[in-house]
Amino acid sequence: MKRRDFVTGLGGAAAVAGCAPETRQPSTPAQSQQRFSWDLVTTWPPNFPGLGTGVNTLARYIGELSNGRLEINVYAAGELIPAFEVFDAVSRGTTEMGHGAAYYWRGKTEAAQFFCTIPFGMNAHEMNGWLYYGGGMALWREVYEPFDLVPIPAGNTGVQTGGWFNKRIDSMDDLRGLRIRMPGMGGEALKIAGATPVSLPGSEIFTALQTGAIDAAEWVGPYNDIAMGLHQAARYYYYPGWHEPGPTLECIINRQAWEQLPEDLQAIVSVACQAVNLDMISEFMARNAGGLSQLEADPSVEVLSFPPDVLAGLKAATLQVIEELAAADPVVARVWNSYKTFLDESEAWQRISEQAYVATRG
Amino acid sequence: MKRRDFVTGLGGAAAVAGCAPETRQPSTPAQSQQRFSWDLVTTWPPNFPGLGTGVNTLARYIGELSNGRLEINVYAAGELIPAFEVFDAVSRGTTEMGHGAAYYWRGKTEAAQFFCTIPFGMNAHEMNGWLYYGGGMALWREVYEPFDLVPIPAGNTGVQTGGWFNKRIDSMDDLRGLRIRMPGMGGEALKIAGATPVSLPGSEIFTALQTGAIDAAEWVGPYNDIAMGLHQAARYYYYPGWHEPGPTLECIINRQAWEQLPEDLQAIVSVACQAVNLDMISEFMARNAGGLSQLEADPSVEVLSFPPDVLAGLKAATLQVIEELAAADPVVARVWNSYKTFLDESEAWQRISEQAYVATRG
Repeated sequence: MKRRDFVTGLGGAAAVAGCAPETRQPSTPAQSQQRFSWDLVTTWPPNFPGLGTGVNTLARYIGELSNGRLEINVYAAGELIPAFEVFDAVSRGTTEMGHGAAYYWRGKTEAAQFFCTIPFGMNAHEMNGWLYYGGGMALWREVYEPFDLVPIPAGNTGVQTGGWFNKRIDSMDDLRGLRIRMPGMGGEALKIAGATPVSLPGSEIFTALQTGAIDAAEWVGPYNDIAMGLHQAARYYYYPGWHEPGPTLECIINRQAWEQLPEDLQAIVSVACQAVNLDMISEFMARNAGGLSQLEADPSVEVLSFPPDVLAGLKAATLQVIEELAAADPVVARVWNSYKTFLDESEAWQRISEQAYVATRG
Repeated sequence: MKRRDFVTGLGGAAAVAGCAPETRQPSTPAQSQQRFSWDLVTTWPPNFPGLGTGVNTLARYIGELSNGRLEINVYAAGELIPAFEVFDAVSRGTTEMGHGAAYYWRGKTEAAQFFCTIPFGMNAHEMNGWLYYGGGMALWREVYEPFDLVPIPAGNTGVQTGGWFNKRIDSMDDLRGLRIRMPGMGGEALKIAGATPVSLPGSEIFTALQTGAIDAAEWVGPYNDIAMGLHQAARYYYYPGWHEPGPTLECIINRQAWEQLPEDLQAIVSVACQAVNLDMISEFMARNAGGLSQLEADPSVEVLSFPPDVLAGLKAATLQVIEELAAADPVVARVWNSYKTFLDESEAWQRISEQAYVATRG
């Protein structure tokens, strides 16, 4: 399935035509005219709003910046590779590139989820501070190195919503016995609260919720949830998204493919990913705002806040989950230590900046 | 002072050496091998932490992505052009590119400041939603078009702090008579509150505050304020930065220079600016958090919140300023209408997402 191809570009053509190498600009060696065609497999439904379309934007940026020298062919979940096999496919080199969420890979390494999001953890703003300027990226590269994967942050949804419930949640007791679609560490915290976490790919959530196979489901936020029709499958829409306060989405690249790129194309991929990291959350900001207005005008939907004691209970459960993971896995312990150290300082700063500011809005 | 130079690149060299054009890849026309050297003048002190260094990052990105085809020479305020003459210099084409803050140019067009920040306006997250996905960029390009300037968002500091005061502010009355360094619309609001806004470039703030020439000064946040020694010039550090809740910094490009770039270099500049827009606020997130810890450990500094009635009074004054501007200038009226419409929806969304989430931190 690997179909990277090296079309000889201008450098080669010129040489063939008898132009001596020394007539070339030093900054445009023959290598930099090599052309690459990469497959990018995602964990998202085709052209999925925000997530899938964000990957399309990434592919377009890379094509435009490289003037066509690096072509990225985007495949939705299942088109080449099933959603939850993206990590293995890129690790093996079956495809050069993947896009998804690191917490899907906790079966490979529990530490992965800290590079996406953890319940009651960093918001998007803090994640970017930690990853780009707080030591996070060095740890992430180290954690993925054994899998021959190069990780690059490439998107964020911002704070998600708490999910769709077919009954009201007025206390921790109300969570007991519920089957709730929630991946990752949030699901583990729900287990401690007496609920049963269910892991389902996005495409199966609507039917499961509508048929009552599950009692509740979180997906992303108003924009995506409406696109999936979840507002027609359950009545109570809870906030905030305690379980996903700012998930970083990842671009993963097979190490050998990465090392075969000339430096300028590596820079193009890295910078395009950083631009998309902002572009995606900006689209979510705009479209979730519009989506919320639509839901608040819908008489069949009630937008409700989780009660404080439920949030406190889930926070305590989350801490228990993290401490158990850190005690069992030294890699998790190191990542958690770096994450927690940054979060303690950033919480204090956010308290007198973003948090104090939005509070003036009443 | 204009010294754009067009070194003939591989395309030309190949042609000279007798290679027929048809031996070239269609995606790499001769034009795309032209080399450009641009001057970028900024409104920031040399290598100023976060702001100036962010511009250095932008120049590095563009150089790496273009493999040296577009070289950006960065000049700090005063090296080629005084800080407050950057707009004119790039508009005239004296230099190809500039970096600064749009609210410095309200003397040219009052509407400009809405594309940087306004008191009690959008935070960085909302600004990016409005600019990239809410119609903001189309308006910004329209407002700068008569000046032959192409604007591109290229940085943000996030919510700033309220500034350094040499006396406590316990009520609106305490603002009366104070000389406060604050540019833009925040200064106009202070005027209504009975204070005297003073506009000073960053380099002059410390001395003015220390000598008592001014009674208070806002600059950016802990990271930059410490770098400038402001914590040694005044005791009381107030928050939140009601006057600058998320200033977008701008890259401005002379229209003729822009139109002479091949499409791939235009894409490289645009995407590099978007990447830096995230990179800069991420650095501020990380370094302001560290800076605050340092200030809280400093016995000569008191970190205080503005009292609610002071914030309410300044908010009312701000609204008065905006309504007067909109009544006097139809361009301001159109921009404010778009801004306000987006803000009303985004405030509602932020209330149940970011705001509700950070509230769980207590």
